[in-house]
Amino acid sequence: MAEIISARVIVTCPDRNFVTLKIETADGTTGIGDATLNGRELAVVSYLQDHVIPCLIGRDAHRIEDIWQYLYKGAYWRRGPVTMCAIAAVDVALWDIKAKVAGLPLYQLLGGASREGCMVYGHANGATIEETIAEAVRHVEQGYRAVRLQAGVPGLKSTYGVAKPGQRYEPADGALPTESLWSTEKYLRSVAPLFERAREVLGWDVHLLHDVHHRLTPIEAARLGVELEPYRLFWLEDPTPAENQAGFRLIREKTTTPLAVGEIFNTIWDCKQLIEEQLIDHVRATIVHAGGITHMRRIASFADLHQVRTGCHGATDLSPVCMAAALHFGLSVPNFGIQELMPHTAKTDAVFPHAYSFKDGMMHPGEAPGLGVEIDEELAAKYEYRRAYLPVARLEDGTLFNW
Amino acid sequence: MAEIISARVIVTCPDRNFVTLKIETADGTTGIGDATLNGRELAVVSYLQDHVIPCLIGRDAHRIEDIWQYLYKGAYWRRGPVTMCAIAAVDVALWDIKAKVAGLPLYQLLGGASREGCMVYGHANGATIEETIAEAVRHVEQGYRAVRLQAGVPGLKSTYGVAKPGQRYEPADGALPTESLWSTEKYLRSVAPLFERAREVLGWDVHLLHDVHHRLTPIEAARLGVELEPYRLFWLEDPTPAENQAGFRLIREKTTTPLAVGEIFNTIWDCKQLIEEQLIDHVRATIVHAGGITHMRRIASFADLHQVRTGCHGATDLSPVCMAAALHFGLSVPNFGIQELMPHTAKTDAVFPHAYSFKDGMMHPGEAPGLGVEIDEELAAKYEYRRAYLPVARLEDGTLFNW
Amino acid sequence: MAEIISARVIVTCPDRNFVTLKIETADGTTGIGDATLNGRELAVVSYLQDHVIPCLIGRDAHRIEDIWQYLYKGAYWRRGPVTMCAIAAVDVALWDIKAKVAGLPLYQLLGGASREGCMVYGHANGATIEETIAEAVRHVEQGYRAVRLQAGVPGLKSTYGVAKPGQRYEPADGALPTESLWSTEKYLRSVAPLFERAREVLGWDVHLLHDVHHRLTPIEAARLGVELEPYRLFWLEDPTPAENQAGFRLIREKTTTPLAVGEIFNTIWDCKQLIEEQLIDHVRATIVHAGGITHMRRIASFADLHQVRTGCHGATDLSPVCMAAALHFGLSVPNFGIQELMPHTAKTDAVFPHAYSFKDGMMHPGEAPGLGVEIDEELAAKYEYRRAYLPVARLEDGTLFNW
Amino acid sequence: MAEIISARVIVTCPDRNFVTLKIETADGTTGIGDATLNGRELAVVSYLQDHVIPCLIGRDAHRIEDIWQYLYKGAYWRRGPVTMCAIAAVDVALWDIKAKVAGLPLYQLLGGASREGCMVYGHANGATIEETIAEAVRHVEQGYRAVRLQAGVPGLKSTYGVAKPGQRYEPADGALPTESLWSTEKYLRSVAPLFERAREVLGWDVHLLHDVHHRLTPIEAARLGVELEPYRLFWLEDPTPAENQAGFRLIREKTTTPLAVGEIFNTIWDCKQLIEEQLIDHVRATIVHAGGITHMRRIASFADLHQVRTGCHGATDLSPVCMAAALHFGLSVPNFGIQELMPHTAKTDAVFPHAYSFKDGMMHPGEAPGLGVEIDEELAAKYEYRRAYLPVARLEDGTLFNW
Repeated sequence: MAEIISARVIVTCPDRNFVTLKIETADGTTGIGDATLNGRELAVVSYLQDHVIPCLIGRDAHRIEDIWQYLYKGAYWRRGPVTMCAIAAVDVALWDIKAKVAGLPLYQLLGGASREGCMVYGHANGATIEETIAEAVRHVEQGYRAVRLQAGVPGLKSTYGVAKPGQRYEPADGALPTESLWSTEKYLRSVAPLFERAREVLGWDVHLLHDVHHRLTPIEAARLGVELEPYRLFWLEDPTPAENQAGFRLIREKTTTPLAVGEIFNTIWDCKQLIEEQLIDHVRATIVHAGGITHMRRIASFADLHQVRTGCHGATDLSPVCMAAALHFGLSVPNFGIQELMPHTAKTDAVFPHAYSFKDGMMHPGEAPGLGVEIDEELAAKYEYRRAYLPVARLEDGTLFNW
Repeated sequence: MAEIISARVIVTCPDRNFVTLKIETADGTTGIGDATLNGRELAVVSYLQDHVIPCLIGRDAHRIEDIWQYLYKGAYWRRGPVTMCAIAAVDVALWDIKAKVAGLPLYQLLGGASREGCMVYGHANGATIEETIAEAVRHVEQGYRAVRLQAGVPGLKSTYGVAKPGQRYEPADGALPTESLWSTEKYLRSVAPLFERAREVLGWDVHLLHDVHHRLTPIEAARLGVELEPYRLFWLEDPTPAENQAGFRLIREKTTTPLAVGEIFNTIWDCKQLIEEQLIDHVRATIVHAGGITHMRRIASFADLHQVRTGCHGATDLSPVCMAAALHFGLSVPNFGIQELMPHTAKTDAVFPHAYSFKDGMMHPGEAPGLGVEIDEELAAKYEYRRAYLPVARLEDGTLFNW
Repeated sequence: MAEIISARVIVTCPDRNFVTLKIETADGTTGIGDATLNGRELAVVSYLQDHVIPCLIGRDAHRIEDIWQYLYKGAYWRRGPVTMCAIAAVDVALWDIKAKVAGLPLYQLLGGASREGCMVYGHANGATIEETIAEAVRHVEQGYRAVRLQAGVPGLKSTYGVAKPGQRYEPADGALPTESLWSTEKYLRSVAPLFERAREVLGWDVHLLHDVHHRLTPIEAARLGVELEPYRLFWLEDPTPAENQAGFRLIREKTTTPLAVGEIFNTIWDCKQLIEEQLIDHVRATIVHAGGITHMRRIASFADLHQVRTGCHGATDLSPVCMAAALHFGLSVPNFGIQELMPHTAKTDAVFPHAYSFKDGMMHPGEAPGLGVEIDEELAAKYEYRRAYLPVARLEDGTLFNW
Repeated sequence: MAEIISARVIVTCPDRNFVTLKIETADGTTGIGDATLNGRELAVVSYLQDHVIPCLIGRDAHRIEDIWQYLYKGAYWRRGPVTMCAIAAVDVALWDIKAKVAGLPLYQLLGGASREGCMVYGHANGATIEETIAEAVRHVEQGYRAVRLQAGVPGLKSTYGVAKPGQRYEPADGALPTESLWSTEKYLRSVAPLFERAREVLGWDVHLLHDVHHRLTPIEAARLGVELEPYRLFWLEDPTPAENQAGFRLIREKTTTPLAVGEIFNTIWDCKQLIEEQLIDHVRATIVHAGGITHMRRIASFADLHQVRTGCHGATDLSPVCMAAALHFGLSVPNFGIQELMPHTAKTDAVFPHAYSFKDGMMHPGEAPGLGVEIDEELAAKYEYRRAYLPVARLEDGTLFNW
């Protein structure tokens, strides 16, 4: 038995907010888990501090599955981003502890390496097609084998994924949600030319991805999928909101452009139909939002039966603790597909010293026992939480729309 | 425009914890909404205080639909009990305001009364069959037309729905979750005799209900449904966990015992398949946990298309604010079925003075403008939050099970 | 890297044949895996020695998932008992090594204990109903909480599961397959009386199971399931051959008697439809025949999504190495159901000294690092392989039938 | 009765490994069956020698169906390549004997000739498109009416189906599995140009085939199917792994390019859904791997109900004994489609003198009694078994992939 004697939540904002759970056992072993829910961070802090941690003290850190079930079934009201994020933080911290006790990097406990490294994709964003292409070229020069392309939409003042002039792109850009306007028609006209130009400049040996960010209806997404077929995308992401999973059937019937979805999923139930009917090709659920290593392995295992591969969300709203967990997970599962990489700032990296590394377009979790990432609490304490939200989108007539 | 100038969260514990959101507009109109999530109360408090309220200030309280979409789509990570409970609190408070502005009881804005009152069912619990029957008799004497029967299971130390000797039943009974043992076999043997005896004593003019509390697999639930057919239940509740909605097909194929489920649902997506395949007869989602009046009307509307009626959860984990909302809702929708009633303690009722009333087994929301319920903040302030959890269940071998 | 420097197959016959694979890494760590395929033992020996072992030498023992995929996909012709048994032996031996390297009992690497122990069921067999009942009584006295009942069928000379007078039951009873006669009609008439009597004598607090051993058509199985409903079986096993998985729909439509199947399955593909349509309640695939720990976890995970629990085959055709693996697996997965136990002879136990134990009807894998079972090679060498087969069954007209 | 008095397994390697079962009856009649399982040959040898042959001695060679059921049901653990290959060897040898006893070529016992001969397709492989086309031209000049085209993939060092420079193509090319790298993207770009050029050069009167060799996901296969539609393929083979038969639905929805699959199937259960949902056009199961003449007739019979035709695998991993059996089978069934032909080396042909012949793109089994093929045991004895494996494929990141 490895008795849990303490668990604490650490909130820090080294350029952006991160929530980290740190669990300690009687022999002094510690483990950490990411608990960051972008824009709703403090609700998870409360969920953990006020409700979960009192239940953890005195439990055996080795009983990961039991604790997972305890928190999931014991909550009575199951699922949802806040709940599953809190459970994930506990789960990852416990896996960190177990791997440290075993003296092995976590991926070894998950079955060992299934590949040499995890291919990542980077973000090439620009106000214009040419800016985006130039950014993509820079990524390829840095070794990236896969790049997501997003360009400003002519006629729209701002677009998701595209930074304001002279700034690094960070989606959570306001102390209150920025409101931006959206026009599906303008957007739809802008995508094919971006990829036509991209193939001219970048050729065919780099994987190109595109994120629709839930902005289309199924039939619109089907049209876009068909239009993009000549450019052979690696995937078209979040083509439509996915609460109604059957909605993807319409897209799937029409186009062979591969589909990815799931960065906002929190359990397998959010994608069971999508996977079992093979309506998608990549499931983008993440360790931190979908119940941790324990639950994500179940999702991956289910996906593998249906020839669906992983493609975990990996924007800066996930801390380096989550990135480490994702890399151990991705290195081990048989059906890894790709991992998103939006690099953290130097300040963030300093707060979370880590063993993982990037080389030639691939990432590796490193060989340190456990997750291979720690939190420098002294440094973390210097950066106080500051409220920041993702924007919301409205149609041009003012209708609240999907961000 | 009715500008929102303040919004506050009030936590009180008059015998049990309640969370209430109070919104005020520029002209001094106030509205309240229940935000109680049993055992995870403070996470919702944080969700509201730290993340939602800053976004509300300055908005027009009249734009209920827009604000609902703003909070749902703007959260980016959708669904889940914490999120939807917070949205529900805002939604109900805004409906309260709007009805007050109109000078009408809320049900009038929802289309007016579709019936004279809302039939409710009470809880008859006992350690033995005879105790339960005696309790049911008392309910019938009080005018109840429908009673839920739960009896202690021989061989099990405790059972959900059944109070410890000499105590009023309150599920959230510990500062840490009580762990209780469960045996499906012992339970299954105990149910039919309860209802056989109930029909002997109570006759056939009272509706009898039973709650399985998610403890059976589909095939076990099917068996129980068949066994109970001779006793003509009004419904068999929560026969099996419902994440895998298709699991209800098996129960449905086997038995004509009517089925109800949903007290832990938080959106229509949790029951879309259940309803569209007519796998259930009553949907038990509640105002507070399923996104408020705005979203519950959508669920009821969809259910009506498929001949499914409502049957809202109404235990003491919902405050009188939620009860009032449920009654306005129930009075107005065409496919109201029944409303659960587990009366609050006198202390709770004192903190929440209300216009709704019980008579002849029916409840009515009253004719006060708005919800017809207020919070006595001075009194509320006297009862400090104290952590309380629902129990967890384990099988006799120690396996964590569904509570 | 833990380089595999040797792998050997050990065949021994301490009362019955067992095949064991032993893998050794450069630092001297060894792991073992059961490779026993009853009646086809030497084909697996050849598969391992002649085809698999040459591919293992020099590989990293830590890369369990990669080696699993290498052997599964690399075989080109996938699936089947011989192939999957060989893969299972490698997989279990590698998990044994990894857990020893980690210094932990294997179940800790699988997520830790989800329960205190694994409930097992024993076999009560007798030539007559009374003999069977007497045997069941003895089991209950020994602490068993679950007993499988099989009695001789009046009019049939012999029946599966029932020993010859004065002998311990061992299915593989001949150097050539014994041929026995089968009459479905005689059998069907004999089952309900057995269970009627069993409930009279044994009461309702012990789980009763029955094995049909693939001898019925779906409609016959449906009839039997209905007939046995009053006796509340824990499960009815192998009611019909399962190659045509849809065949179970007919049984399922008709009866609520729980169903178990799968001791001859070798991959998840043998039961995917059975599970996803919830046609069964327990999946009986075993570690040794269904691809090892790695694949069995995938089956269990898939089953859990569909409220199907495990119930691993555990007759004496599986060595103590497989029993240890099954107990680590069963202790860890959330949806463990029950484990079959047909105790090995003293001679077998001496060859395979092990940490697992039986107490109060439950088994536990013990706390030794790794599997907690070894092979005494010196002793093993004393017991030479001797060919032994399961019987075959014929109908009374001579038609070859399902055994 | 034709008592079986001996059965022997003959292993020989005249350029590649072949396993042959020879059965002899009391009157001296002999029959042979192919038992070659590429890369796992000796496991089948053991299965036959150690487990099957002891059961055959003394049985009546005429009772083919009974022996088939005896071996299939009597094995208890059914299906799988090793098991079904052994059963096939027995089955074919017994049919050989029966036809010899009848004094007729085997096809006569199968219902007689349904056509004049069996159309075959040959392999045109090349490092480049032009080399492949040239090879195809040579095939057409030799009379082939159907040719499978495979070309090297630019950017990949090696590809299945394409020989190393200056060598005859033999897939099983190493004493340990060769590891080759695979890139789906590079491959997909290379196929349409091959067929565009092929139609330019070869015109439209020759059937063109292409083998994907299980390397695509369903959506990728769908894309390829669509891209190839202008070139009117006879079939697209093994577009995706087929354990999850429902996966073919997605391909089928998208494209009218005919589909073939099944060279690794071992029973009808591997393709029942594929056939009954008409997801394929040709079933490629072979005599030797799918349970012999007896079982293959059942597959063909079921396929015919659903307008699916045969298209037996016929690479050099099948001995001339299997080729003979396939031709008798193909000549007789009503729904024959095509037969693969990859000619054996002269050395192989010398070991297996045979009556079958090739003419004008068609093959005929000849008119010799029985199969019309024998094994020259003296010659066979000169060629000792040498271990040889098919390669394995890895993705460029090292992930083990489908070969």
